[in-house]
Amino acid sequence: MNAKNPKESHTIMNELILPNDTNTFNNLMGGRLLHWMDIAAAISAQKHCNRIVVTASVDNVSFKHSIKLGDVVTIEAKVTRAFNTSVEVRLDVWGQNIPSGTKVKSNEAYYTFVAVDQSGRTIPVPPIEPETEEDKILFDGALRRRQLRLILGGKMHPDDATELKALFFGEPKVD
Amino acid sequence: MNAKNPKESHTIMNELILPNDTNTFNNLMGGRLLHWMDIAAAISAQKHCNRIVVTASVDNVSFKHSIKLGDVVTIEAKVTRAFNTSVEVRLDVWGQNIPSGTKVKSNEAYYTFVAVDQSGRTIPVPPIEPETEEDKILFDGALRRRQLRLILGGKMHPDDATELKALFFGEPKVD
Amino acid sequence: MNAKNPKESHTIMNELILPNDTNTFNNLMGGRLLHWMDIAAAISAQKHCNRIVVTASVDNVSFKHSIKLGDVVTIEAKVTRAFNTSVEVRLDVWGQNIPSGTKVKSNEAYYTFVAVDQSGRTIPVPPIEPETEEDKILFDGALRRRQLRLILGGKMHPDDATELKALFFGEPKVD
Amino acid sequence: MNAKNPKESHTIMNELILPNDTNTFNNLMGGRLLHWMDIAAAISAQKHCNRIVVTASVDNVSFKHSIKLGDVVTIEAKVTRAFNTSVEVRLDVWGQNIPSGTKVKSNEAYYTFVAVDQSGRTIPVPPIEPETEEDKILFDGALRRRQLRLILGGKMHPDDATELKALFFGEPKVD
Amino acid sequence: MNAKNPKESHTIMNELILPNDTNTFNNLMGGRLLHWMDIAAAISAQKHCNRIVVTASVDNVSFKHSIKLGDVVTIEAKVTRAFNTSVEVRLDVWGQNIPSGTKVKSNEAYYTFVAVDQSGRTIPVPPIEPETEEDKILFDGALRRRQLRLILGGKMHPDDATELKALFFGEPKVD
Amino acid sequence: MNAKNPKESHTIMNELILPNDTNTFNNLMGGRLLHWMDIAAAISAQKHCNRIVVTASVDNVSFKHSIKLGDVVTIEAKVTRAFNTSVEVRLDVWGQNIPSGTKVKSNEAYYTFVAVDQSGRTIPVPPIEPETEEDKILFDGALRRRQLRLILGGKMHPDDATELKALFFGEPKVD
Repeated sequence: MNAKNPKESHTIMNELILPNDTNTFNNLMGGRLLHWMDIAAAISAQKHCNRIVVTASVDNVSFKHSIKLGDVVTIEAKVTRAFNTSVEVRLDVWGQNIPSGTKVKSNEAYYTFVAVDQSGRTIPVPPIEPETEEDKILFDGALRRRQLRLILGGKMHPDDATELKALFFGEPKVD
Repeated sequence: MNAKNPKESHTIMNELILPNDTNTFNNLMGGRLLHWMDIAAAISAQKHCNRIVVTASVDNVSFKHSIKLGDVVTIEAKVTRAFNTSVEVRLDVWGQNIPSGTKVKSNEAYYTFVAVDQSGRTIPVPPIEPETEEDKILFDGALRRRQLRLILGGKMHPDDATELKALFFGEPKVD
Repeated sequence: MNAKNPKESHTIMNELILPNDTNTFNNLMGGRLLHWMDIAAAISAQKHCNRIVVTASVDNVSFKHSIKLGDVVTIEAKVTRAFNTSVEVRLDVWGQNIPSGTKVKSNEAYYTFVAVDQSGRTIPVPPIEPETEEDKILFDGALRRRQLRLILGGKMHPDDATELKALFFGEPKVD
Repeated sequence: MNAKNPKESHTIMNELILPNDTNTFNNLMGGRLLHWMDIAAAISAQKHCNRIVVTASVDNVSFKHSIKLGDVVTIEAKVTRAFNTSVEVRLDVWGQNIPSGTKVKSNEAYYTFVAVDQSGRTIPVPPIEPETEEDKILFDGALRRRQLRLILGGKMHPDDATELKALFFGEPKVD
Repeated sequence: MNAKNPKESHTIMNELILPNDTNTFNNLMGGRLLHWMDIAAAISAQKHCNRIVVTASVDNVSFKHSIKLGDVVTIEAKVTRAFNTSVEVRLDVWGQNIPSGTKVKSNEAYYTFVAVDQSGRTIPVPPIEPETEEDKILFDGALRRRQLRLILGGKMHPDDATELKALFFGEPKVD
Repeated sequence: MNAKNPKESHTIMNELILPNDTNTFNNLMGGRLLHWMDIAAAISAQKHCNRIVVTASVDNVSFKHSIKLGDVVTIEAKVTRAFNTSVEVRLDVWGQNIPSGTKVKSNEAYYTFVAVDQSGRTIPVPPIEPETEEDKILFDGALRRRQLRLILGGKMHPDDATELKALFFGEPKVD
């Protein structure tokens, strides 16, 4: 399989916040947003893998700014790194009030997906070659995030998470 | 108000076709697609007008290719021309089966929106300046399409539709 | 196949406008209405064809009056004319605020559907025989509307649209 | 308030059975149907009362025939009798498979609604004058059904339910 | 088949009232609640039968207290009695406004379900053995409620409803 | 404010997997589950705080077992620890195929919520007193998980996360 680059899996989703997406403050509910993010990320993962994909995990997500009824939520997704049969997808989420011209970052997140064949068995995915400086930073960080997932999932002993230790000494931030 | 260009209102929407979006052949229903197109077009119109907008009309839409359950529908929208208090939005719609790598044009369409203030009264919108060759063709065609809308809506007598006659002698096509 | 009359495909749909159907002005969104109209029209087309039908196109639709949250939208549909493997359906849409007793025409529209067999191939449909004066006017107009659809879809040269020219000299209106 | 007749509240609803309306046998779920019936009945009650109405109760409903995915459910509703501040609505429900031309009665039901003013307080409703033979049978039966509701709700002692006793000696049936 | 007890089918459902669940007074619509109750009751019936079940009927339901937008509706369901191929399920419904700490009983209801095998044919269900005093009262009442259902459905002559007569002399109430 | 115990916020949600909740393998989509988990967790947080709450973050979630169309998903939630104006909620999720009698753990998760007053400002929440052995383990772990959230959110320097280091030497697991 030929290597792909992150641009090929770039996916944009725009959704209008309707009443049923909101809580009693007329703000987008966190769970509804996690649902849309999952769909945007799955489309991005499919583009990289050219396979059906299923959600394996979502990393820690913090909701920094509320998004209001009638606003537009913009979700951008792209694959950061491919492992044997899985990929990590980075998501950036903004809320826009278009009439007033405001646009604020709501949150970032990482979802991972496993590629499967028609009978649902995991199957290898194409490798990725990061191109831009940002892509390379995301590619490098993917290893540390993966070790954290494995430790939190009880599948790796912290002593073996050599890469993760970098997390504790800061990681260049991409917004 | 300063003129804007069509690029500023460019909007991309990606949606995954779920079971409730489909008919008994597992194909996306036309009405569900018209609904998504309305939302994508409204976001685009809002970006040009920086105002709340309401749908005024949709032009003739033909559905050329079916889109299947599990496929992704991609809708691209941009404003083609601004009139006094309204804008015309062009939509291009594709269906993609990502695992198999197919992507086909489903249809094009034009929706028009009226800009309104907080109390719901119509309000002037910024002018537009087409930049690319394609933008200019869409800009010119908008006048003919508007005359057709006015005639079909009983608001213009065909004798006055001088621009529309061009329609009957072919119009450069943008796909 | 025996000819049917338009009455046999007459279909009434009533829907209550719920919060998620509305924009920030608490008015029914155009796209949501186009979705319901598609379902009402498809049921009507099925009644004429006794076949599964798929949406082929929707003609120009103008939204004249807004319909509010809590109002009832009434959609009436009937087949106006049958072609080889397709039918044209006329829709009339009203918004009612029942407590205050108001009822206003929101819009009219024409949708076309293709009849298909179990494997999705197009299949001939029964002819239609208009009965009332109104049915005959709609039957005659259907030919002109079809020519306009074919020209707009790039499938007919305007020189061949002999019937359509009548459009430019007015067509009796049925509200 | 002038008396109205049942015809004035006659309401027809047609709905297409979509995947999310069905159970694992691809049959319409009872609860989804009860939801649509409530909306159809509420529209009918509003037409009689010219007031906002809220559901007070639903009588025993039996589901006799299943309705399949892709079928059309037709619900007809009309007010049978008006009490001080409430009305009883009769519903008849059919399932149709239009391509195959079958139409079967699924069930009948009675819903009751209370009319309320803008602040939510109950308010008197217009009387009703049954016209047809069927309307008169339904009008008479409404009293017995009401007594049964009151007994089941613990608001009437069976000894006082003089009308209800007729129930135990059969009641002319209207299908 | 071994007898089960009502505890084994006990099912709790909690739902948050969202905008689309409400009428113009921001109160939960009766039909939406009947839909949720059907799902909760079906899960309970499945637990008793270890079979797929389909809704056979719902008894008279009265809505006593309105439930507001943003409130939580709690539905508790358990099987009260098993017949040959069907079960009766008792439902208790409360509305809670959690921030203000209020919790009120909205209504009670009985749904009946038929157990079916993979091809949709009815199939015997396990017997039930009531344990608590409350369970025994519900078990005994199930026979009377069944006779009322059969009479209302035209399947039993009132003269044969020996158990039902108890209904008319009061039945111990379980709230 | 008096201390509460975790039992007081215990919340059970049961949902039936419908077609629109599933992917092309007829398995529950991860995003849909995250949405339901958010609602269950919010209800639990509200019970502890007696306040409206908004989602602040969700920790790493791994999906271990797929849940099929027609299965029932059971979500149990309870507050593990209260901070100044926020609470952590632990979720346990199972999928059940009731006819076949299987029940498997799908995943666990931690969501955090902030309590707000009527104008949306954060407000102090009651303290919690863990009672059972399990509650105490969850209470202790909450501090480490909070430090991890703060580090991942860029709000704490790893050197200050004294509690988190325990994570790297294992943490008693509660399933």
